[in-house]
Amino acid sequence: MGCNEEDSKIIADVFLAAEIRDHASHGMIRIKDYYELWKARRINTKPDIRIVYETPSTAVVDGDNAVGMVAARRSMEIAIEKARIAGTGWVATRNSNHFGIAGYYSMMALKHDMIGICLTNANPLVAPTFSVSRMMGTNPIAISIPALIQPPFVADFATTPIARGKLAVAEKKGEKVAFGFVQDKSGKPSDDPTILKSGGSMLTLGGDRLHGSHKGYCLSAIVDIFSAVFSGANFGPFVPPSVAYLPVLEKKVGDGTGHFFGAMRIDAFQPADGFKTKMDQWIETFRAAKPSEGQERVLIPGDPEREAEERIMKEGIKLVPAIKDDLVVIAKELGIEFR
Amino acid sequence: MGCNEEDSKIIADVFLAAEIRDHASHGMIRIKDYYELWKARRINTKPDIRIVYETPSTAVVDGDNAVGMVAARRSMEIAIEKARIAGTGWVATRNSNHFGIAGYYSMMALKHDMIGICLTNANPLVAPTFSVSRMMGTNPIAISIPALIQPPFVADFATTPIARGKLAVAEKKGEKVAFGFVQDKSGKPSDDPTILKSGGSMLTLGGDRLHGSHKGYCLSAIVDIFSAVFSGANFGPFVPPSVAYLPVLEKKVGDGTGHFFGAMRIDAFQPADGFKTKMDQWIETFRAAKPSEGQERVLIPGDPEREAEERIMKEGIKLVPAIKDDLVVIAKELGIEFR
Repeated sequence: MGCNEEDSKIIADVFLAAEIRDHASHGMIRIKDYYELWKARRINTKPDIRIVYETPSTAVVDGDNAVGMVAARRSMEIAIEKARIAGTGWVATRNSNHFGIAGYYSMMALKHDMIGICLTNANPLVAPTFSVSRMMGTNPIAISIPALIQPPFVADFATTPIARGKLAVAEKKGEKVAFGFVQDKSGKPSDDPTILKSGGSMLTLGGDRLHGSHKGYCLSAIVDIFSAVFSGANFGPFVPPSVAYLPVLEKKVGDGTGHFFGAMRIDAFQPADGFKTKMDQWIETFRAAKPSEGQERVLIPGDPEREAEERIMKEGIKLVPAIKDDLVVIAKELGIEFR
Repeated sequence: MGCNEEDSKIIADVFLAAEIRDHASHGMIRIKDYYELWKARRINTKPDIRIVYETPSTAVVDGDNAVGMVAARRSMEIAIEKARIAGTGWVATRNSNHFGIAGYYSMMALKHDMIGICLTNANPLVAPTFSVSRMMGTNPIAISIPALIQPPFVADFATTPIARGKLAVAEKKGEKVAFGFVQDKSGKPSDDPTILKSGGSMLTLGGDRLHGSHKGYCLSAIVDIFSAVFSGANFGPFVPPSVAYLPVLEKKVGDGTGHFFGAMRIDAFQPADGFKTKMDQWIETFRAAKPSEGQERVLIPGDPEREAEERIMKEGIKLVPAIKDDLVVIAKELGIEFR
């Protein structure tokens, strides 16, 4: 598609990270989406990614409509560089695109003994509390915190009760979903995973007002504002689609999709070894919590993905036939040998 | 109680902010708790609050076991000072106590054209997903973001579906609560607001695993780690009680309660007027979202408290007789005239 070798490796690395962490919804299934966006000239594979505004601890990056992974990785590198000097580094990125899993970028900080933070907005599917309008994406939050002997704490979650991909799976299987995930076009609770096609919308974490959906709305709104208002990207309902089969939106309020990145040196707060030892103690304390009846153990954020990684690194990645078929077609169109 | 005039005014100011924002659960009802802690010599009214570690954009503050408001206000002032020079400022505070409403401190940033962030851990009532152990507090998150013509965006919410105080209200009325707020000692869902007295625990935002309680657990854990691991305070189950009728915990893993504060200059990302104009546009866009059937309008975080403030500033604060009785007793014990 015209990406240079370095950028191609970054994109592949993020896809693979999603696959081995068992988040295939953000893995190779998306290659076709990126390819179609490129064919439609809606994404730039030869970007000039640059800092357009900065202070000692902050920067705004213009992603030049790059493949999201390339703009995001560069932005997180800048956050880490800033943190090295100022203690913390904060980068808001505009004019970017879908970037895969947020956890990839937050985890980049770990080997530098830093806490990593990554937020991104996304195309609108989610309604605020008391509304039926699709105003927000599933706007994820990823935070990675290093420990010493224990593996790192890695939280990476959408600000909706479930991911968009899980609705698609239920739809394909012809199954209903639990209440609390979606609503119909008038705002009534629904268990129909196809409801997004008839004016429905996804709900924020909490599900309904009684159970705290306004808090999920706050979270999703904060992710949107940090990603787009800070950077000058499109916010809320104006975030561009991450697939080519949806048309370009008529109204723009900024440039492309927005992300937000943070890096904090742990020794900006106390000596690094002391921090990591205390983090070990935190993890060990929470692992020792008493499980509920019928549960074997209490998890630390990051455990499920780490265990998937161990398994998949042994067993290999299962390439779903339909995705393989897509890749074969793309390879043929691009004149590349598919191996 | 021996606080100097400046500190007394700060404490009163935070109590009043809670009252006029209609969060009476964090207002004058708490004066007795603070008084009893002081009588039990568990709180220090003549603190030496100081920076014990710092970089250009970060600091760790030792609150010297002060009344939480005094340590918190000083810490947020330091975050704002740091932001003035470095673009952003981040302060982790240990050896503090219950500090009232988190939103008070995040809102301090607004008049400096900064975004304000405030987190705090709290005494343990909440179980992680798959657990029955009370490992976390209701650990709130407060974020304030300035706009130009529109009022600011102010999110201030516990990382549980409801506040602890609402369980107490239901208990007093002899009412059941909705499922999704608490569980019994074996981890079964419960609608009994008194269940905390028989080994039960509160649930995280999301309520159960199916509806994303693991995301609420991540949020609450992040607040705990930022507040206590960064600062050297007690984390999770070791956070000291904020009332004197609960005994001092036997095990300590740090000093007192922990908070975390952030201040980010909006002009660290783009010219301040451009930022605020875009924030106005964000707010106006979300206000214009279509309401669900039966709803009149879509709210922006901060709207309910702002409207309460307008009303209460006209009508005055209603002092509940039981709280007045407490205050009369305290005034008498301290030899102060109650007016």
